[in-house]
Amino acid sequence: MDYIFSNKISSLKPSAIREILKVTSDPSFIPFAAGNPAPEAFPTEDIRAMTDKILRENPVNALQYGVTEGYPPLREAVREFIKDKYSLGNENDSLIITSGAQQVMDLATKALCNEGDTVICESPSFIGSLNCFRSYSARLAGVRVENDGMDFEMLEQTLKTAENARFIYTIPNFQNPSGVTMSLEKRKKVYELALKYGVLIVEDNPYGDLRVSGVDIPSIKSFDTENIVIYAGSFSKILSPGLRVGFALAPSEIIAKMVVCKQTSDVHTPLLNQMLVYEWLKNYAIEKHLDYLRGIYKRKLDLMCEGLDSSLSGFLDYQKPEGGLFIWCSLPENAGVMDYCKKAAERKVAMVPGSAFLTDANEADNHIRLNFSTPTDENIVKGINILKDLKL
Amino acid sequence: MDYIFSNKISSLKPSAIREILKVTSDPSFIPFAAGNPAPEAFPTEDIRAMTDKILRENPVNALQYGVTEGYPPLREAVREFIKDKYSLGNENDSLIITSGAQQVMDLATKALCNEGDTVICESPSFIGSLNCFRSYSARLAGVRVENDGMDFEMLEQTLKTAENARFIYTIPNFQNPSGVTMSLEKRKKVYELALKYGVLIVEDNPYGDLRVSGVDIPSIKSFDTENIVIYAGSFSKILSPGLRVGFALAPSEIIAKMVVCKQTSDVHTPLLNQMLVYEWLKNYAIEKHLDYLRGIYKRKLDLMCEGLDSSLSGFLDYQKPEGGLFIWCSLPENAGVMDYCKKAAERKVAMVPGSAFLTDANEADNHIRLNFSTPTDENIVKGINILKDLKL
Repeated sequence: MDYIFSNKISSLKPSAIREILKVTSDPSFIPFAAGNPAPEAFPTEDIRAMTDKILRENPVNALQYGVTEGYPPLREAVREFIKDKYSLGNENDSLIITSGAQQVMDLATKALCNEGDTVICESPSFIGSLNCFRSYSARLAGVRVENDGMDFEMLEQTLKTAENARFIYTIPNFQNPSGVTMSLEKRKKVYELALKYGVLIVEDNPYGDLRVSGVDIPSIKSFDTENIVIYAGSFSKILSPGLRVGFALAPSEIIAKMVVCKQTSDVHTPLLNQMLVYEWLKNYAIEKHLDYLRGIYKRKLDLMCEGLDSSLSGFLDYQKPEGGLFIWCSLPENAGVMDYCKKAAERKVAMVPGSAFLTDANEADNHIRLNFSTPTDENIVKGINILKDLKL
Repeated sequence: MDYIFSNKISSLKPSAIREILKVTSDPSFIPFAAGNPAPEAFPTEDIRAMTDKILRENPVNALQYGVTEGYPPLREAVREFIKDKYSLGNENDSLIITSGAQQVMDLATKALCNEGDTVICESPSFIGSLNCFRSYSARLAGVRVENDGMDFEMLEQTLKTAENARFIYTIPNFQNPSGVTMSLEKRKKVYELALKYGVLIVEDNPYGDLRVSGVDIPSIKSFDTENIVIYAGSFSKILSPGLRVGFALAPSEIIAKMVVCKQTSDVHTPLLNQMLVYEWLKNYAIEKHLDYLRGIYKRKLDLMCEGLDSSLSGFLDYQKPEGGLFIWCSLPENAGVMDYCKKAAERKVAMVPGSAFLTDANEADNHIRLNFSTPTDENIVKGINILKDLKL
């Protein structure tokens, strides 16, 4: 039989990153392509102890069906955590536990977008989110990212002309892949513009706790008095991505629709995983753990930047990010990014060409994204030396 | 702001079952409405030991990102398991690990259906699947369920007239909610018809291992020489639903599209959960556990049927199922099913009215679905006595 696939999916390619991840599960590759936490970042002993406690004290609850909204004590603990720490959430908001923050994009897009509606995105942006929007046949309208966030004039122009714009998707902290952090001034302007044009904002903040220099900037959601922001949070980068636990905080009416979508998608996020995150939030010295993570990532970021500066300056150019997991490097216009990535792969260094992150994948681009969280210190040095060899 | 929701979702109501589940998380309710495994069905001590082993021996793997297709050793173990036990899978098939079998419906529908395409379903059928199809704006074409499965003539008529029929959705073993098992003859006929009309089959088999009488009947997938069957399997009813681990076995070309959909949905099913199922498949006396489960469910089924026979015969009518979790009871035409369910709820007995399971929810129906796996033996007796009081 010749299979007939849906229009929305037949044009969609497998994520370049995930395909590369598959190749680079070969441990002989130097993993500058992935976005994995450092292996030493996982509190493995504590997770084992907490899991053991849950399965001793409350096994049936951990193994039985649960409600779609999420494990009620976890929902409450997350609300408290983000209220205390980031002033997020008001009485009009609800919170749903999701299977990673990726599912926030899936549920929000399904609930909000008809085919052909527009999602306004930073360009470049996270390929997993872009592909999610594409998978519902949303049109992507890309807005250039400047050193302090979205190009404000281009955003307004896009809002004026886009057909049925449903939301603005932004990663304001240490954006993936650009590493850019949006200034407070721009956050406020983006919020005002969204309000002016009657468009929602999806604020994706997986890296916010991984700041290694500079000072924290309030989330857009923290000044959401008009209830237009869907905030996506994640435990992937601060606890474990393999557990697949994230959440959305958003106006209750929107969360209610996302719950309906989740019922038909995976029913609920696994209970054991939710209870584990709950234990961690309630009984664990989280700030100490975050300090530990920031220590690891500051060291790795500094190490990679030193290598880039000493071995590749004049060839690669970059703005050092204040946190997150990625360095976004520009190559000379004539350098041939795809060839450079291919040659690197032949020498067993994996990295992602910038065009993968553009809203229009056919646009020319002269960037590569380097991840510094996954490789060992030794491999950071080794990988940069290989890139140095290849630059000519 | 007045929120605008997508057309596909704005008409969709929250699942009646999941809403009822929320009410009945109140432990004072007698839970005839849910579809939960019996609490004593979970091998809690073994799960704790296996989890401990995984988190001692391989913690980083369990906590790190994984590939979308699933944990490779689990994929292989599941393929072996279903090949050995049910003769499922040929060289044209691939297997994807999903976040419960519900996600198989989500991914298959997204990959295969444009808005307005038709999904042919048994009517009544599992509400979670029906709502999933609806959530992609698929049209549902219901085919009546007879005592030995789908009404064959109505199926052929539907195949002849349906616009862009994409697949036939069936639960051949102990169907939810009707309890009906499709005969081998009908399975073969359904397969032939699907082939004749160029339509795929989605075969959902969550209850197949829970047969308590009669003999096993081969799955439709087991005679799928023409590669038209997507088989959905689950560990929810035989190990734990809270872990959210299921799988699809289907032609590789279809699985490849489902993988793309899953990348943008939840990236991958949690690794710890997948590794746990792997340990269970490889190192556990599964047949002994299944015998134990069948013992529990046979006892509960018999107990509920005895109660129905002695207290409600002449009022409620039913065909005793050979397995699964549900008894489908018809009431006298003039009994007023919704009122009966409401009165039962006032007396703290939760059950689901049959109309919830119809492809056309406005159709008249005189059934209730009773679940016998969740309540204790004591509550089965108590609940039936309450239903007896209410029958007049």
